[in-house]
Amino acid sequence: MVVFLNYMKYSAIPTAQSIVQHCQAKNISNIIISPGSRNAPLTIAFAENPFFKCYSIVDERCAAFFALGLAQQLQEPVVVLCTSGSALLNYYPAVAEAYFSNIPIIVISADRPVYKLGIGDGQTINQQNVFENHIRYSANLRQDVSHATDKVMHYKPEWIDGKAVNDVQHEVQNYNDEELNRAFEIAFTTNCPVHINAPFEEPLYNTLEEPSVWSEISAIPNEVVNVVDLEKHRNIWNSSIRKMILVGVNTSNAIKDIVLEKLANDPSVMVLTETTSNIHHPNFFNSIDSLVAPIEMHADTKLEFEKLKPEVLITFGGLIVSKKVKAFLRNYTPKHHWHIGGQFANDTFFCLEEHIKISVNDFFSEMYAENLHLKSDYFSEWNLVKEQYELKREDYLKEIPFSDFLAFNHILETVPNYYMLQLANSSTIRYTQLFNVNPTLKVFCNRGTSGIDGSTSTAIGASLASSSPTLFITGDLSFFYDSNALWNNYIKSDFRIIVINNNGGGIFRILPGKENSEVFETYFETRHSLSAEHLCAMYGFNYRTAKSSEELEEELSTFFNKTGRPQLLEISTPTLKNDKILIDYFRFIS
Amino acid sequence: MVVFLNYMKYSAIPTAQSIVQHCQAKNISNIIISPGSRNAPLTIAFAENPFFKCYSIVDERCAAFFALGLAQQLQEPVVVLCTSGSALLNYYPAVAEAYFSNIPIIVISADRPVYKLGIGDGQTINQQNVFENHIRYSANLRQDVSHATDKVMHYKPEWIDGKAVNDVQHEVQNYNDEELNRAFEIAFTTNCPVHINAPFEEPLYNTLEEPSVWSEISAIPNEVVNVVDLEKHRNIWNSSIRKMILVGVNTSNAIKDIVLEKLANDPSVMVLTETTSNIHHPNFFNSIDSLVAPIEMHADTKLEFEKLKPEVLITFGGLIVSKKVKAFLRNYTPKHHWHIGGQFANDTFFCLEEHIKISVNDFFSEMYAENLHLKSDYFSEWNLVKEQYELKREDYLKEIPFSDFLAFNHILETVPNYYMLQLANSSTIRYTQLFNVNPTLKVFCNRGTSGIDGSTSTAIGASLASSSPTLFITGDLSFFYDSNALWNNYIKSDFRIIVINNNGGGIFRILPGKENSEVFETYFETRHSLSAEHLCAMYGFNYRTAKSSEELEEELSTFFNKTGRPQLLEISTPTLKNDKILIDYFRFIS
Repeated sequence: MVVFLNYMKYSAIPTAQSIVQHCQAKNISNIIISPGSRNAPLTIAFAENPFFKCYSIVDERCAAFFALGLAQQLQEPVVVLCTSGSALLNYYPAVAEAYFSNIPIIVISADRPVYKLGIGDGQTINQQNVFENHIRYSANLRQDVSHATDKVMHYKPEWIDGKAVNDVQHEVQNYNDEELNRAFEIAFTTNCPVHINAPFEEPLYNTLEEPSVWSEISAIPNEVVNVVDLEKHRNIWNSSIRKMILVGVNTSNAIKDIVLEKLANDPSVMVLTETTSNIHHPNFFNSIDSLVAPIEMHADTKLEFEKLKPEVLITFGGLIVSKKVKAFLRNYTPKHHWHIGGQFANDTFFCLEEHIKISVNDFFSEMYAENLHLKSDYFSEWNLVKEQYELKREDYLKEIPFSDFLAFNHILETVPNYYMLQLANSSTIRYTQLFNVNPTLKVFCNRGTSGIDGSTSTAIGASLASSSPTLFITGDLSFFYDSNALWNNYIKSDFRIIVINNNGGGIFRILPGKENSEVFETYFETRHSLSAEHLCAMYGFNYRTAKSSEELEEELSTFFNKTGRPQLLEISTPTLKNDKILIDYFRFIS
Repeated sequence: MVVFLNYMKYSAIPTAQSIVQHCQAKNISNIIISPGSRNAPLTIAFAENPFFKCYSIVDERCAAFFALGLAQQLQEPVVVLCTSGSALLNYYPAVAEAYFSNIPIIVISADRPVYKLGIGDGQTINQQNVFENHIRYSANLRQDVSHATDKVMHYKPEWIDGKAVNDVQHEVQNYNDEELNRAFEIAFTTNCPVHINAPFEEPLYNTLEEPSVWSEISAIPNEVVNVVDLEKHRNIWNSSIRKMILVGVNTSNAIKDIVLEKLANDPSVMVLTETTSNIHHPNFFNSIDSLVAPIEMHADTKLEFEKLKPEVLITFGGLIVSKKVKAFLRNYTPKHHWHIGGQFANDTFFCLEEHIKISVNDFFSEMYAENLHLKSDYFSEWNLVKEQYELKREDYLKEIPFSDFLAFNHILETVPNYYMLQLANSSTIRYTQLFNVNPTLKVFCNRGTSGIDGSTSTAIGASLASSSPTLFITGDLSFFYDSNALWNNYIKSDFRIIVINNNGGGIFRILPGKENSEVFETYFETRHSLSAEHLCAMYGFNYRTAKSSEELEEELSTFFNKTGRPQLLEISTPTLKNDKILIDYFRFIS
């Protein structure tokens, strides 16, 4: 049983009380509120209750990504709350990101009463099920009748369709409780976003000193532990001498050290770790593109790939960034592809055989149960490729001029231990994947939709749930896109941003098929000459800048020092050289 | 027949050619493009064809509102084009605004091929029908097969399911043409947004020197002229001595002068014009809230309202801003409410009797066909109220200190003739409605969803289709919300912005029920201390500021002069006084 202490104020609206009671009972305490009048009952109910930690963020697009960042770190549901109308639609980019990244944000929208929908009132849209394509559940709550006073509802105060108002209100409450229980259960059990839409009638600001309703709250069911017979898999495991393990987005410490050691020392296993996998071992392969690219460029590509293709591919974690490994595995298909753990599995390589819903640790314990020592050159063959590109990368770094490529190398060598590293999409994540990242860092990037739209907000939200400082690295387009991310009062003084400013969408220069033309510069690259300096002045960031390797090293040497305000370092790189240096890198290491 | 001249480059992808041919045949020439790779076939096809005027805007939220502004002025469809993924979702706020404001923006999204959906690829979401709740049509195009090369499509190159590739491609083309014809027809005939989703397979950047397909394009059907028997209505009109006409959002010059004069000189008619109605006559009532408020405050409110309530209410145009007139008409319901013209009619007052789908001019010509001279005091009774509040408003303006209220009066007295006036939502539109607006101005405001999310972008888009200069007035929250609106290369040097900065959401202070508390300041008002100065420096605006009546008059005296760059004037008003001055105004005039 949950005990609700008496706090100062409760909304007079029953459903507002219910929603807050459900959140409290489920220990959901982080509430991101965007201003509005229709959502006043909930704003009051959350903000006046000291159980909740409320945040105020005006731009709903930023608010939802901020919530996503918090939830990403806390690994628990976070609420975003907005008023009626288009406010809700601004949540959509983050809702979709949460949907594909399995992050449980709970969207609560206030709505007008049903009889005021579709009659031309202000801030009124069709909110029910509006996220249909990217939500695990939409709870469309009913409106309280006991509270409604507006005479245009066309019913007698005491009776509705022959029923007493109290009875109807009771029905409404039961219905809403059921919907709320269902929505929260789905958020907790799928780690996905859900939407709760709550219509409120005026007056909206009335409060009570004691709650007038007590919700029926059901417990979240315990996770069902799947029992899977893995004998068949173990047989295949034990008889396969070419096993590839590919790890996508993951939180750190998800896999036991003992499992990692087994995998790292198995000559028949090669483990590909993406930067966002947060898994490290010297024997793992972390710069996937650097590993695959040389083979792509060799004369006997096909032969080599045939030799190196796995018999068994095992994936776990979230989405995969590397395009090169996707192309490789789609063209050189393994006999078996199993995805381990998680709620959902993607058939990314068009050969998924099975989604095995047990923990990754349990799976590999099973695989190594017999402790066989399989003879294989699989690891060492790949390792040869790795040793070669690593040496060549060193050489390449010595000979290239200042550029995106060199800047990323400088930065990644300098980030202090144990920082959280948040990465924007496009170039930022792709460049980062080319280098060794300090294994004490925790690395995150919004790979659900891979959008450039909310990375800064996500990083700021995430930083609040992290005891160690956060560095956010971003490109210029992504940074300016989400400039409103800086518009809030929650940015910690140890928060750091590095903007790699190459005056446009640098990634387009490295795509095949583009050509240098006005059309290219205007509609693809979207060339600009903006700087982050003014935004820093506006939002109270220290601003620093670097335009050469020397300046960058100089700036980085003190950039992570303690300061009274957050800091941003803008690195200007040469627009017209970056693409060539990147493309030449892949040639050089081949 | 439409003749397509040979221009330099065509996308090699058949569906991309088709879409562009449909747009050109339907004379849709304005294309707002956001950068991306998946939409490259269309970006190339539009940008390389001199028939089209293309605009590049990075933030899709701004891009769609910019398109909305253009379409609002041009009264014709405007295209927004984006890449796959969350980019599309950022269009949603503007799509909903267009839906409720009847503005035809045509959303074109590039998508991944169907076989790459739901398998964990980057920038891939569920795009089909994603705007379901707020779109008139979603055309989900099929993917060209002749062009596809990726072997993982699992079909033999020449045959698909036993059919020759050419035959299948022919089917796809026919299907896509039909869908495109349907989408464009709906956009033109309903003036509403439609969505076209087009999946493209790589390679995306290939071009041809001549088109490889010729689309089957059907003509937009002529508007059907409705013939409505209005005898019954004329009888009611002729026998009613209390007729109210309430005009919502409208373009200027929509109503013939002869009709306006008849209405203005009919003693049984009173015409309420909202600021966004763009209809003017000295005998009309333009500050609706100032007119209704005094009666609300009188001792015998009920009696007076009963006396002043109309027998017949006639509405035309878009949504109504004034809350006071809504409350009045919902509580004192007219016997008849007819909405004239337009595609859709709202039952805003819960008494809509009929939507008469003929032109407003034709309707009133019919009403005045018999040229009766009805005796009535209806106009003069209302006019008495008007004369009283107008005198008192003069007095009030003389006695109040500098404030939002006074600032709006200064500004509206100063805007030069024939300017386009674009207004943000919330306080801005509501304050403006309290004053007489220069009748040579054309006034616009996004009242479809009444959101604060895209007013600046809309104003900038609109300004490009206007031969006269544009003034955009906005509150601080609305301005900072849409700060990315300034991130483009299309802002004219005669574009003017006035930001009324009262350090937060001033409108919340005037809502009933709020109280002064930290919760109020943080989660409702969202107090801040930001200024527009840094954004002006960033985006090349001249920045000016005023903190008193004297400074404001001084600044306004030269603000509209010709300059080499656009200008912004930030007016700081006293946060804690504004609400009292507004509330006292209504008391004062009562």
